[in-house]
Amino acid sequence: MVSEVIEDMLKRMQSHPGVIGSVIINKEGQVIKSTLDNTTSLQYASLATRVCDSSVDALRNIDPTNDLTFLRVRSKKHEILIAPDKEFVMVTIRTTTDGA
Amino acid sequence: MVSEVIEDMLKRMQSHPGVIGSVIINKEGQVIKSTLDNTTSLQYASLATRVCDSSVDALRNIDPTNDLTFLRVRSKKHEILIAPDKEFVMVTIRTTTDGA
Repeated sequence: MVSEVIEDMLKRMQSHPGVIGSVIINKEGQVIKSTLDNTTSLQYASLATRVCDSSVDALRNIDPTNDLTFLRVRSKKHEILIAPDKEFVMVTIRTTTDGA
Repeated sequence: MVSEVIEDMLKRMQSHPGVIGSVIINKEGQVIKSTLDNTTSLQYASLATRVCDSSVDALRNIDPTNDLTFLRVRSKKHEILIAPDKEFVMVTIRTTTDGA
């Protein structure tokens, strides 16, 4: 059952235009499923976990009842979309689009 | 000269729909200019600096030639747009819009 949910998530993530790769990680930052090679998957898992953790922490410093729902990290080379869910964190890497 | 540039930045940031407040900080995380009260400005300066630093660091772990250009931190209560520039970091807090 869980693996079907994950397969479906990955398909949905990959279906967006410009997607280079998608990684699904658990709340401990471990790679559950990925369309990328192992080394690259681990790098993006580590990035997503670090940026999520620092964002959640900083948000809660301001308002303990608040919570992170989505993160977009845009860089010179690509854009990383990070969507934390109850159990998983979905990480999508895609080419940068125009809109901010 | 610099203060005119900053005033202009702040005006542009404030002109976007749904903007709750805007803070301009320097690369050390100090508040240069803000439309918010002092305590709130310091809180968002701290958040922006922490999330920027962890993002830049994580991005460079993957590719040392890459660099952060924009960050969007969406939470249950609002959305924070962080635009690092050469000298300053522009932080805009606004109500969450529909589009991701």
